[in-house]
Amino acid sequence: MNDTFLKACRGEPTDYTPIWMMRQAGRYLPEYQKVRSGRTFLELCKTPELCVEVTLQPVDILGMDAAILFSDILIPMEAMGLELEFLEGRGPFFPQTVRDRATLDRLIIPDPDESMGFVMETVRLLRKELKVPLIGFAGAPFTCATYLIEGGSSKVFWETKKMMFTDPDLFHGLLEKITRCTTAYLLAQAGAGAQALQLFDSWAGILAPSDFEACALPYVKRIIADLKPTGLPIIYFANNGATLLEYSAASGADVIGLDWRINIGDAIRRVGDKAVQGNLDPLALLLPADRLRVRIKNLLDDAQAAKGHIFNLGHGIHQFTPPEQARIAVDAVHELSRR
Amino acid sequence: MNDTFLKACRGEPTDYTPIWMMRQAGRYLPEYQKVRSGRTFLELCKTPELCVEVTLQPVDILGMDAAILFSDILIPMEAMGLELEFLEGRGPFFPQTVRDRATLDRLIIPDPDESMGFVMETVRLLRKELKVPLIGFAGAPFTCATYLIEGGSSKVFWETKKMMFTDPDLFHGLLEKITRCTTAYLLAQAGAGAQALQLFDSWAGILAPSDFEACALPYVKRIIADLKPTGLPIIYFANNGATLLEYSAASGADVIGLDWRINIGDAIRRVGDKAVQGNLDPLALLLPADRLRVRIKNLLDDAQAAKGHIFNLGHGIHQFTPPEQARIAVDAVHELSRR
Repeated sequence: MNDTFLKACRGEPTDYTPIWMMRQAGRYLPEYQKVRSGRTFLELCKTPELCVEVTLQPVDILGMDAAILFSDILIPMEAMGLELEFLEGRGPFFPQTVRDRATLDRLIIPDPDESMGFVMETVRLLRKELKVPLIGFAGAPFTCATYLIEGGSSKVFWETKKMMFTDPDLFHGLLEKITRCTTAYLLAQAGAGAQALQLFDSWAGILAPSDFEACALPYVKRIIADLKPTGLPIIYFANNGATLLEYSAASGADVIGLDWRINIGDAIRRVGDKAVQGNLDPLALLLPADRLRVRIKNLLDDAQAAKGHIFNLGHGIHQFTPPEQARIAVDAVHELSRR
Repeated sequence: MNDTFLKACRGEPTDYTPIWMMRQAGRYLPEYQKVRSGRTFLELCKTPELCVEVTLQPVDILGMDAAILFSDILIPMEAMGLELEFLEGRGPFFPQTVRDRATLDRLIIPDPDESMGFVMETVRLLRKELKVPLIGFAGAPFTCATYLIEGGSSKVFWETKKMMFTDPDLFHGLLEKITRCTTAYLLAQAGAGAQALQLFDSWAGILAPSDFEACALPYVKRIIADLKPTGLPIIYFANNGATLLEYSAASGADVIGLDWRINIGDAIRRVGDKAVQGNLDPLALLLPADRLRVRIKNLLDDAQAAKGHIFNLGHGIHQFTPPEQARIAVDAVHELSRR
């Protein structure tokens, strides 16, 4: 069992810097595309044997030091009672948005083992196969709420901010309910065998710091506090969140995820006594091998001051990335960080 | 003549904090929509009398302390020899992208008075009408380059970063050429009577700090250095650039524009002895009047340490904003900042 990743999360010494990549089980891998072809994304998410197969691929093919459960942050939102579709090339789509009290009141807090049993089954099956730690995950409440309010992804998040600024009771009522669902969902993943848990706050970066502090962070804190008894390392990743780092560090998370927009050394000074995860620009994987290695070396050097460092990209790996470039990065991190 | 804006740019004492809003001449104003209807966006941009009319509207209707030339950052890119279209609901589109040396070599450095005479004519006409200072502007070279390389707007800027990471000679050749065009264009605006100049780096925020420093900032610095002899205040706005502030401050600009993702007090500590411009979340204009006033008061308080402060939004005003909310903000800034 390779537990380098878990040691780095806890700030313990490691022989080398562990690496995994957000969205590492994904479209850039031909092996993934083979499994995905002929079925919808949601069918794949709900078939444990196939989720296991694609979760294992980047570990087996590229040598990642951790696996992340193959799923989607919106699975528990569907379980709350909202119809969810994934439109080819357009992303997630909720035909019924949540913009009034009556719709909010109809949302349920699902029993995760009942309505999302396929996820826990995937976790259990994976633990039998994996030689590296398994990361479970969920979306952070603010991010999940944006999808329910907008009905999908958005550019300016007009409806989300309109609700936040003009109907704070409704807005906080929604985040409250998502928070309860998310906590139960992550506790169930922990119960099934997940060995670390990551909260993805993909859209936190659209908020001014004062709004983040008032409208997003309290729910993240509550979830993390409720997960503490599991003893699992918690990773909090606020995408585009360089101006929110002091708040993120106060979330209670053990590891702070970083996007690529900040020098990792600056970020480490700001998060203090925390492990960090990140933060290569995903498109820097296109660099020629020699320059990619130099860039990785600089990043590893800048990260030396961290209490713990897990190498990762600053965002999900892009679907057009040649897998051999990801392999060069994995090997470079392992070789250049060896103590 | 109300020169409060110019004084604030120079860090001189003012009776109150001046305010203008990015994209203040725009679709949220019914008066603008009336002028725009029945003609294309580019037709509007190229008709000086109409540009004058829409530039004046927010000053007359809302009481802004500065006017910004109505135009588009891609006008000089068209003048370099590339066909430009604006597709309804999809934004700018260049049918011919710039991704190879032959296409780059065909781009010309236009004589601004010849090929963009309509802009200089607008500037001259505006100066006869305006009782507040007139801001001229251009896109920063990196931002302009992304449109030429991608052929329009983008989400991940795959082609831009691919060129930057795999063909740096071609990439820097393109930025070099855009820089020469931009400098000549801004000097012509200054010659026609613009009283301040703003460089919009709308996409700088997609870059890691080291890439920004190597691939975007040098061209901004060069333009600003070449504009210094005009004596006009220069504003540099790197959108989503909170992690780039130290670099932005080193650009040579007199005023640093701030988006809403950072507390303005923190930003002021980081840019040092510079005036700042910003930074209310454009969607916070939706707040009920009493809460909007509190938010503006807090922002003004946090900005007290600045060498100079020009109130603005952290991004362009959104097209669905009720104009009366913008009016509340203008009045609140004037009233709450009065010394």
